[in-house]
Amino acid sequence: MARTIERLAIVGLGLIGSSIARAVKAKLPGVAVTGHDVSAAVRGEAQALGLCDRIAADPAEAVAGADLVIFAVPVGGMADAARAVAPGLRADAIISDVGSSKAGVGAALREALPGHLVIPAHPVAGTENSGPAAGFASLFDGRWCIVTPPADAPAGAVAALEAFWSALGARVETMDAAHHDMVLAVTSHLPHLIAYTIVGTASELEEVTESEVIKYSAGGFRDFTRIAASDPVMWRDVFLANRDAVLATLQRFNEDLTVLQQAIRRGDGDKLEDWFTRTRAIRRSIIEQGQDDAAPDFGRKH
Amino acid sequence: MARTIERLAIVGLGLIGSSIARAVKAKLPGVAVTGHDVSAAVRGEAQALGLCDRIAADPAEAVAGADLVIFAVPVGGMADAARAVAPGLRADAIISDVGSSKAGVGAALREALPGHLVIPAHPVAGTENSGPAAGFASLFDGRWCIVTPPADAPAGAVAALEAFWSALGARVETMDAAHHDMVLAVTSHLPHLIAYTIVGTASELEEVTESEVIKYSAGGFRDFTRIAASDPVMWRDVFLANRDAVLATLQRFNEDLTVLQQAIRRGDGDKLEDWFTRTRAIRRSIIEQGQDDAAPDFGRKH
Ligand SMILES: NC(=O)c1ccc[n+]([C@@H]2O[C@H](COP(=O)([O-])OP(=O)(O)OC[C@H]3O[C@@H](n4cnc5c(N)ncnc54)[C@H](OP(=O)(O)O)[C@@H]3O)[C@@H](O)[C@H]2O)c1
Ligand SMILES: NC(=O)c1ccc[n+]([C@@H]2O[C@H](COP(=O)([O-])OP(=O)(O)OC[C@H]3O[C@@H](n4cnc5c(N)ncnc54)[C@H](OP(=O)(O)O)[C@@H]3O)[C@@H](O)[C@H]2O)c1
Repeated sequence: MARTIERLAIVGLGLIGSSIARAVKAKLPGVAVTGHDVSAAVRGEAQALGLCDRIAADPAEAVAGADLVIFAVPVGGMADAARAVAPGLRADAIISDVGSSKAGVGAALREALPGHLVIPAHPVAGTENSGPAAGFASLFDGRWCIVTPPADAPAGAVAALEAFWSALGARVETMDAAHHDMVLAVTSHLPHLIAYTIVGTASELEEVTESEVIKYSAGGFRDFTRIAASDPVMWRDVFLANRDAVLATLQRFNEDLTVLQQAIRRGDGDKLEDWFTRTRAIRRSIIEQGQDDAAPDFGRKH
Repeated sequence: MARTIERLAIVGLGLIGSSIARAVKAKLPGVAVTGHDVSAAVRGEAQALGLCDRIAADPAEAVAGADLVIFAVPVGGMADAARAVAPGLRADAIISDVGSSKAGVGAALREALPGHLVIPAHPVAGTENSGPAAGFASLFDGRWCIVTPPADAPAGAVAALEAFWSALGARVETMDAAHHDMVLAVTSHLPHLIAYTIVGTASELEEVTESEVIKYSAGGFRDFTRIAASDPVMWRDVFLANRDAVLATLQRFNEDLTVLQQAIRRGDGDKLEDWFTRTRAIRRSIIEQGQDDAAPDFGRKH
C-alpha cells in the first residue's frame, strides 16, 4: 500500500527547494513543511517569504519527524547536507533529492545515510535564476519528474514519492539512474556546456567587441545566454558528477560538428539543407507534447 | 540632402519582406508599396493578407517607378531576383536587401545590376518561422539594422535608407560588409550551426530514444530546437555565403570546447566555475540594453 506523506522536510531553499515549498502549500495544503538552508541569509529570506510552516536553523531539527526529506542543494553538496541531518532522521523516512545527476547522488546519499531508504528523483524543470525568491508554485506543472528507485526499494515508498510529485503537477517516469544520467547528458548537460562555451568564445574574440556581441545578440546568440546565465556552482557540480555521460555525448556532438564543418568548407549545400530539414521536425514534436511554448520566439515580448 | 522614399518595392514576401510591408503600412503610411514574390502561392497569400498596395506577378513591373527596392529573398537567390527586376528599375533607384550575410550579397547585387546604386542592409531581427503569414509590424522595434554602404555611396542615399529603417522602429548602425559578416558569424551564424548540430546529435543517439529527448527537453535542449527549426534554405545559403567567417569563429569555439572538455575530464571544478561565472555577466548586459526579455525562461508560459 502506498504510504502517504504528512510531514515534509526540504533541505536547501533555493529555486527548486522553494518551488517545492510553494507547490506543496498550493496543492497539498495538508502536508506540514519544515525548511532548512545552510545559509542564514537564505533562511531569513524564506522566513520573510513565508515559504514553509517552519524554518529550522539546525539541520537535524529540520528533519525531525519528517516522513519525506528532500535535498535540494547542489549535487556536490548532497553528502554534506545528508550527514548534517542524519542525527534527526526518522528510521523509516524516505530520503530523496532533486539533483540533476542521479547515479552519483544516489551513491553519495546512501553512503552518508547507511540503513536509510534513498529514492532519488529529478524534476526536469527550472529557470536560469536561483535562490528562494526565484521559485514559483507552477514550476513543475506538466514537466516530467524522473524517479530512479534502487531495485530493492519498497513499492509503497516509491508509489508515495511518485504520488507526491504528481500532486505537485508533474508527470512521473521511473528509470534506472545510469540511464537517467545518459538521457540528461543529452537533453540538459550538453546544451548547457555548449551554451557556456559559445558565450565564452563570443566574449573573447579580438575581431568583434563584447559590445557588438551584445548589440547584435538578437540574431540567435541571446538564446544561448539564458542558460549560460545559470548558477555556476550548480553546473560545476553537474559536470563533475556526470562526467562520463557528458564526455560521451560531447564526443558524438564533436563528430557531427565536424561533418557540418566539412560540408560548409566544401560548399555542400545539399548536405546542409538535408540536415536542417531533419532538425526542424523535433521542435514540432516538442511543442505537440506540451514541452515548449508554440508562440514564435518562445513568446518573447518584442 | 537626404532623399525621401515615396515608392517602395519589396521582392520576396516571406517573414522579413512581409514584416517590412506591415511596418511601412503602420509607420510610413505615405509610402506606396508594391510587392513581388517568385511563388504564386505566396503572392496569393500576400494579396489575401492585404500586405501591399499592389502585388505584381511580373518582377520588372513590380519595381517600376520605385525609389527603393528591397530584396528579401534567401541570400543565394539575390542575384536571380535582381536580374529578374533589372528591366523595370529606375536608373536612380536605391537597391537594398535584408540578407543575413553582406559582402557576398553586395557583390552579387552589384554584378547583377551594373550601374545601379547598391546599399546592402541587414535588420538583426527575426523568428524561427517563415512565409508571409509569419511577419508582423513590430518585428524591427528596438532591434538593430546594420547598413553596409560602399565607400563611394552618396551620403543622401545612405541617409534615406537609414531614415527608412529608423522609421520602421529599428536602431541603425553602419559598418563595412566584411566586419558585418564577422560580427554576425559570432552572434547569429555560429549559434545556428551549433543548434542545428546538437539537435541532430540528440536525435540520432542509440542510447537515448528520440521520444526521450523530446520528453525531457525542458532541461535545456528545447532552447536549441527553436533556432534549429529555422528555414533550411535560408540557412544553407547563409553558411555557403559566409563560409570563411563562420569557419574562423567555429575554430575558436572548438578550441574553447576542448578547454572545457579537458577541465571536465580532469575534474577541474575551479576552471569550470570561473568560466560559468564570466558568461553570466553577458546576459545581464543583453537585458540591460533591451536586447532580450528580462523575464525568467524568456517569459515562456509554463
Ligand atoms: N536550477 C534548475 O534549473 C534545476 C532543475 C532541476 C534540478 N536542479 C537541481 O536542484 C538542486 C538545487 O538547485 P537550485 O537551482 O535550487 O539551486 P539554488 O537556487 O542555488 O539553491 C540551492 C540552495 O542550497 C543551499 N545549500 C548548499 N549546500 C547546502 C547544505 N549542505 N545544506 C543546506 N543547504 C545548502 C544553498 O545555499 P548557498 O547558496 O549559501 O550555498 C542554496 O540556498 C541542484 O542539485 C540542482 O542540480 C536544478
Ligand atoms: N528569418 C530571419 O530570422 C531573418 C532575419 C534577418 C534577415 N533574414 C534574411 O532575410 C531574407 C529573407 O528571409 P525570410 O526569413 O523572410 O525568408 P522566407 O520567409 O522564406 O521568404 C523568402 C521569400 O522569397 C521568395 N523568393 C525566393 N527566391 C525569389 C526570387 N528570385 N524572387 C522573388 N522571390 C523569391 C521565397 O519564395 P519560395 O518560398 O517559393 O522560394 C519566399 O516567399 C534572407 O536573405 C535572410 O537571410 C532573415
